[in-house]
Parts: sequence; C-alpha cells; structure tokens
Amino acid sequence: MKFARLGELGRETPVVMVNGRSFDLSSLTADIDGAFLDADLEPVERALADGALPEIEGADGLRVGAPIARPSAIVCVGMNYAAHAAESGSAPPTDLVIFHKMTNTIGGPDDAVPIPPGSTKTDWEVELGVVIGHRASYVSSPEEALGHVAGYVSVNDFSEREWQLERSGGQWSKGKSFPGFSPVGPWLVTADEIDPASLRLRSWVNGEPRQDSSTTDLIFDVGEIIYRLSQFLVLEPGDLIMTGTPEGVALSGRFPYLRPGDVVEVEIEGLGRQRQVTR
Amino acid sequence: MKFARLGELGRETPVVMVNGRSFDLSSLTADIDGAFLDADLEPVERALADGALPEIEGADGLRVGAPIARPSAIVCVGMNYAAHAAESGSAPPTDLVIFHKMTNTIGGPDDAVPIPPGSTKTDWEVELGVVIGHRASYVSSPEEALGHVAGYVSVNDFSEREWQLERSGGQWSKGKSFPGFSPVGPWLVTADEIDPASLRLRSWVNGEPRQDSSTTDLIFDVGEIIYRLSQFLVLEPGDLIMTGTPEGVALSGRFPYLRPGDVVEVEIEGLGRQRQVTR
Repeated sequence: MKFARLGELGRETPVVMVNGRSFDLSSLTADIDGAFLDADLEPVERALADGALPEIEGADGLRVGAPIARPSAIVCVGMNYAAHAAESGSAPPTDLVIFHKMTNTIGGPDDAVPIPPGSTKTDWEVELGVVIGHRASYVSSPEEALGHVAGYVSVNDFSEREWQLERSGGQWSKGKSFPGFSPVGPWLVTADEIDPASLRLRSWVNGEPRQDSSTTDLIFDVGEIIYRLSQFLVLEPGDLIMTGTPEGVALSGRFPYLRPGDVVEVEIEGLGRQRQVTR
Repeated sequence: MKFARLGELGRETPVVMVNGRSFDLSSLTADIDGAFLDADLEPVERALADGALPEIEGADGLRVGAPIARPSAIVCVGMNYAAHAAESGSAPPTDLVIFHKMTNTIGGPDDAVPIPPGSTKTDWEVELGVVIGHRASYVSSPEEALGHVAGYVSVNDFSEREWQLERSGGQWSKGKSFPGFSPVGPWLVTADEIDPASLRLRSWVNGEPRQDSSTTDLIFDVGEIIYRLSQFLVLEPGDLIMTGTPEGVALSGRFPYLRPGDVVEVEIEGLGRQRQVTR
C-alpha cells in the first residue's frame, strides 16, 4: 500500500493512495504514525474494499506533507556507498557510522528549503529512507531485521558542509539539522511492495543530473543496518533511518553548492520524486 | 518551583514539590512536558496557594521517574570542561562539539542501568541538564538565550567507550544510546531558582569519589550553549541539553569501568542526587 499526508503543515490528512486517487484514512487513524504502522493494515484493506473511505476531491491541489508523522528519532548512516566515501575523502567504513538529525527538520517533499544564514556550502543527498514498523532491539539477524520495516520513502538529507565538517570538531550532526533540512516523501510504500536491494536513486540541480546510483551499491544494506543499529540503540515504530547517499554531491568538488533559487530534485525508483526550491 | 514525576514507568504522576511534600498536578497538566513548561506557571502558584492540589500520600514509597516527559531531542555538548578534554586526549574545543542521544534512553534517577551485552567500557558522566521552556531559533545573544530555559536537572550521561570511540568511525553518538543510558532527575528546578554558573557536580562509584567539579569550569556556559545551538538547529519546549561532563571518568584510565552490580551516584548542587545499580 501507499500512504501519504495531504494538506497544510501540521494539519495534514492521512490518506491511502490507489491508482493515483487519494482516500481519507481519518476514520481509521489520526495520523501515519508509529502506532498505525505497528498495527495490522488489514482494516485499511477492508475499508478500501468496502468503499468505506471517502475520496479526497482536488487532492492534486493540496500540499503534499511528509508521509509520516514526526518520529521519535532520525538515525542516519554515513559513508554507506563506497564511491561517496571516496569523493568525501574517506575510506569505506568497516562498521556502521551513524549520526542524528533533529526530528523537527522534517518537511514535505516539495516544501521550500532555506539556505542557512551565511551558508556557502549547502548540499543535497538523495537517500533511501526506511520507516520502522515494529520496535527493534537486539535483533538476531539481518534477515529478521527486515521484518521490522513498515515501508520506504524518498529522502533528501540536506547538509551544510562547513558546519558539518569544518566547525564541528568532527561530529557531523552539527551541519544536518537546519530548518527544513529533511524533506521526506511524497509517499510511504509498504515493505511488501518494495525490494530495497536494487532501487535506482537520482538527484538533479536546476534540471542537471547529479547523483545516479543504485541501492545495490550500499555497503550495509537495509537488513544489515537495522540489525546493527539494534545492537546499540532501540528503534521504535515510526522512526526514520536515512541509509546514506551515493556519489554526486557538491562536497566532491565536481559541482557548485546550492544558492537561493536553485531547484533540487531527488527521486527513488517506486518511491516518488521531490522538488525543492531553495531560498 | 520544583517539579517531579512519581510512579511506575510510563504512568508517572506530575507533581510539584514544596518543602519535601509532593502535590499532584494532574488537575493542571497531564505531564511535565513542553507545553506545560512553555506556559506561564502562575496557575500552579495559585493552585498551591489555594490548597487546590491534593498531597500525594506515601510519596516516599513511589518510584521517582525522570522529571520531564520524553522530549523531542536530547542534544549533548562534548568536551565542555578543559580537564575532561585533556583526560580524553583532546584539546579544548574552540566551538561547540555536539552529539545526540536517543530520547528513549531516558530513565528515572534511581532506575537500574543495564551494562550492554559484552561491554567492558561502560562509563559514567555527571552533567548539568538544561530543559528548554521556549522555542529557540537564531537567538540573538547568550543573555537572551537564558530566557529560553525552563529549568535544570541532574543527568548521568552513560557512555560505552568502545562503541563511542573504537567502532564508531569517530561519530560519538554510537556509544551513547544503549537502553537506560540517560537517567534524569530526581527534580526539575525552575530557572528562577538556580544560578547555572556555579554549581558543584559530583559522582561516586561504590561510594568512592570520582568527579568533583563546578560549572564555573564550563568552556561554553548555558547561555552560550543555547545561543550557539540555535544558530544551526531549533530547540523546542521540553528538549533536554546535556552540557558536558568534567574530569574523573573511567576513560581517563584512572578508574575502572563499570561492572554489573556497581553503584553509581551523581549529584548536582540544588538539583538532587541519583543512584543507579548497574546490572
């Protein structure tokens, strides 16, 4: 199934999408949150089959919000594509390297993104986002770990490289949590409909291609990430994991950093396309 | 004023404490959360003066929970005491170094703390905790920043040094979020009653002294921390800042790391004492 949240920021309506049509889920859940994703989705299927969910008219004219309510955590995996590690001047890691983003950075896929005051090194990062369905603590294997996934989302992990790398004392989180720095969506696609092992992911700036890779190149795949994370923290329903970005960001030196008025697009196969105008 | 949360985990009752007596706040707020701390506390004063809050009988026999509801973020400042930076093998930082803890690590001040499976490097860190009262974004000065504080708490920032430093790729958050790693409390004391600039903070293991310093030695003081954080992230009501730990932790090599059955105590002047048994 495919879920989304439509409407003004902070007042989004949860919907299930079928063949491009949006059906209001409000009678079944207040939001696409951890409790909803942790539960059996059979009531949604039944309500759809019964025609019990009203279609949202004029859905195309509504703002698209992030497809998940605010999570308890955003956990990010760094340097998870070998070619991106190389363009960043690092060797590929032998174990997970993680950092965090503030959860109040989440925005809709097409919301404008402010360039931070004075920033000359604001960068894009297309990433496969994993949304947790069931609590994960000390999971026994990467295979079992996949059973904790609710679904997948497109993410742009905006990053300010001066704050991340030059004035951070080496702790990357510092450049990752400016307002609006985590566009998510447009949709969440449930895990049963997505094979996370081979998804093409791409980005563009002002229509010019930047990143174009596949999750086949992930050093630590989705099951491995959740398995390893669960050995040192507890993932909760609704939590968001950003799995790392492939090569083709401005940090490489091959492309200019973002300026106000740039148009950034990211797309992941089957998970939809985002379009942010920076300001 | 002094606030606490008493009762079983996840079912704590919010209370205001007066001369060692605990008065039930449930009629005024469901919890000691961001919305409560963001609002004017005059209704609490009035209810106390009117005798409108029932006293909790047998409060001494109740579990003490963390004095704050689960926040949207825990932001930690690293290496914020020069002597601790030295014992950790680092130069004092010239700008904030930050990392994050998962918010589900928060526990009561006297809850047992599990040593992570296989860990031989679990460490203690007494820290002054700052709880945000009013949203802070691009605050204009350290002086103004203090106006965003709701109050202060004692914190023990448990840390697993192998996961933090040896298998993290240099990103410290990895060793900071094992279950139970953030005991908070016993009380939150409102900002009007605390001068955060000179508080003695101490820790003990099995009754032997470990840390004994003062917040006068902070490299970045509370106003400076909030002012600087607000330049690159947004702090929300209820969020918790851990301001860094002074010298005297096991990482120094001067003391053994924790083992199951150890008794760890931390205390900050005016903010109360914690006592955890590791298991």
